[in-house]
Amino acid sequence: MTPTTQLAASGVKPPPPPSAVVGMVGGGQLARMTAQAAISLGIELRILSAEANDPAVTAGAKHVLGSPHDLNALQHFAAGCDVVTYDHEHVPFQHQQVLHQTGSRLAPPPEAALFGQDKLHARRVMTASEFPVPPFGYARSAADIDRFVADHGWPLIAKTPRGGYDGRGVWTLRDMAPAQQLFATHSEGVLLEPQLDIRTEIAVLVGRSAAGETSSYPAVETVQRDGMCREILAPAPVPGDVAAQARQLALSLATRIGAVGVIAVEMFHTNGGLLVNEVALRPHNSGHYTIEGASTSRFEAHLRAVLGWPLGETTLTAPAVATVNVIGARSAVDPAGQLPAALVVPGAHIHLYRKEPRPGRKLGHVTALGDTLPETLQRARRAAALLGGSSHE
Amino acid sequence: MTPTTQLAASGVKPPPPPSAVVGMVGGGQLARMTAQAAISLGIELRILSAEANDPAVTAGAKHVLGSPHDLNALQHFAAGCDVVTYDHEHVPFQHQQVLHQTGSRLAPPPEAALFGQDKLHARRVMTASEFPVPPFGYARSAADIDRFVADHGWPLIAKTPRGGYDGRGVWTLRDMAPAQQLFATHSEGVLLEPQLDIRTEIAVLVGRSAAGETSSYPAVETVQRDGMCREILAPAPVPGDVAAQARQLALSLATRIGAVGVIAVEMFHTNGGLLVNEVALRPHNSGHYTIEGASTSRFEAHLRAVLGWPLGETTLTAPAVATVNVIGARSAVDPAGQLPAALVVPGAHIHLYRKEPRPGRKLGHVTALGDTLPETLQRARRAAALLGGSSHE
Repeated sequence: MTPTTQLAASGVKPPPPPSAVVGMVGGGQLARMTAQAAISLGIELRILSAEANDPAVTAGAKHVLGSPHDLNALQHFAAGCDVVTYDHEHVPFQHQQVLHQTGSRLAPPPEAALFGQDKLHARRVMTASEFPVPPFGYARSAADIDRFVADHGWPLIAKTPRGGYDGRGVWTLRDMAPAQQLFATHSEGVLLEPQLDIRTEIAVLVGRSAAGETSSYPAVETVQRDGMCREILAPAPVPGDVAAQARQLALSLATRIGAVGVIAVEMFHTNGGLLVNEVALRPHNSGHYTIEGASTSRFEAHLRAVLGWPLGETTLTAPAVATVNVIGARSAVDPAGQLPAALVVPGAHIHLYRKEPRPGRKLGHVTALGDTLPETLQRARRAAALLGGSSHE
Repeated sequence: MTPTTQLAASGVKPPPPPSAVVGMVGGGQLARMTAQAAISLGIELRILSAEANDPAVTAGAKHVLGSPHDLNALQHFAAGCDVVTYDHEHVPFQHQQVLHQTGSRLAPPPEAALFGQDKLHARRVMTASEFPVPPFGYARSAADIDRFVADHGWPLIAKTPRGGYDGRGVWTLRDMAPAQQLFATHSEGVLLEPQLDIRTEIAVLVGRSAAGETSSYPAVETVQRDGMCREILAPAPVPGDVAAQARQLALSLATRIGAVGVIAVEMFHTNGGLLVNEVALRPHNSGHYTIEGASTSRFEAHLRAVLGWPLGETTLTAPAVATVNVIGARSAVDPAGQLPAALVVPGAHIHLYRKEPRPGRKLGHVTALGDTLPETLQRARRAAALLGGSSHE
């Protein structure tokens, strides 16, 4: 007899009515914001969390402590959930396959998730399916690099196929010496790209439900610095036909890879047109703006998608929406202490993740809505700066 | 040594950075939505909850089980909080006074909270301060009623000064017989009012922070049936000067009574002008629309107010905002099971409270945004009906 039944038997009110149970592996800020969205629909979100103080846990999500690399922990966790989804890409593909084969409902399914885990795999599949991607190569030796340089010249961008994020696992190579050093630590090889002349980096969120319904959000500009997404501008300041093509590409790709959930497709707008860079098969930083800036938050839409429910409208709620990430500055100020100052900024929607402040760490974000992007961005930046985030200049 | 410090000492990550701690007495849907708002700002909301399965608890808010009538429980609870506020009006005034005198920060302070607890007290203070209120009397005997009828005639509205809500504690009396029966069970007396010719019932949310800043939200129409708020229409379909006067009245009243938090001032728009009916000194049903429909949710604004932080903007996010409550129908369908059907309605923002479905119980609400009130209301009604709420006809 569980404690809950004991309570019921002793005359205390019965447990709440049953609700859908969505499991999420990982308890970071993406899980935190998903937990917040789950409250509206009365969905129970359960987290497999690596730490007891992860952002989703301090937000009050039910959680089990466990490693995403521990198959046993994953199996126990999945057994109590209607469907399991992810806050990150660290669950080994082999573990996902076992879960899938033993009857757990995974969203995205393993084959689709692999697309977000392995950049090289993704590029190869996209090439085979004739999606436009940047020129790329795969190098395990200096000879491989020589061949690529013969076609594209220096400098090169090298990326680890797996595990990179926020600028980690990406290097700009100007000659062979550092390239050779790279193989000392990355014997599995690296993905190579020429340094592209990028006009605008674009991201498109696409919803694809377990029932097969699809939807796309407007194309947004993602402003990166040191490989980390700093700012999101919605709608992306690109010609209408480019934005429309970006949405169409993203929709086709989501269907092609069998994604389930809301995914983010990152693209480069170049002189040669749109090129698909990579795909995130989890709530991605480029979608934070939707909490206030779109008619359905992509966190809610992701829950709806993985449960096979209708996805909801995707229109912007204002002519201009800007999100600025609050990144830990060198002084590592805790933004929580700066809230009263930052909340003075008109219409600044502040989100803090309750993470220990460290330089270069994403501690929160600010979204503003307005009539024009420059004015709206300026307000969001002001609030982020008042929160003690590192400068955006 | 607490378990937390043990964890830190053993090399596991330290606890999250400190945050503001707001205590809320009561764990109903108002506390649930406050908990959801607290996540954005990284505020820790703690609940003194009567039941382990109250809506705020199932939403993941930290909680202590305890009765709002138990002074000891209240004192222990308040000791851990920066400020204590309420989800309901059931904490005895005497207990509030003790907490206040022993140094707990209460928002609203006891004298202001009494205004929301005792309708007769509120009417008397408002009359003394020359706020326009409906004609009223106080009856403890048939003779008192006779005197009131001599001035105002039958029928009468009788209200218990304390404890009434959602139509409970309100009676329409057409002659003396039922009036006399009332005294048998309500020897403390009743508040009397003539049956007014009301054009529109209006509510205005007013924020007043612990630092003294004030703000007001647009006037909204509250549509009642059987004494229960069914629908909220924003902005209220009344002339602009009436709406402006309503906001001004509400602001003056909040300052007059020393409110702290976001309060709701309910008014009647009659042929004789605006009359203040009553004041709710807690998150009130008439403000649910602000979650999506105003630039600052009043749940967030309430937290900001009680902490003495800036209150935020109060403008509507769309030309028309409509909220329809999901009230348990006679068949007591659980709306959670109807979600996939209801989520088809475009732009319907659904909120479920995870309460056991019972006839006449508020189980959730739906908010829609649009360009005109009739179309917007129609969408919100459609989603509420699909969720199995009782008919709004």
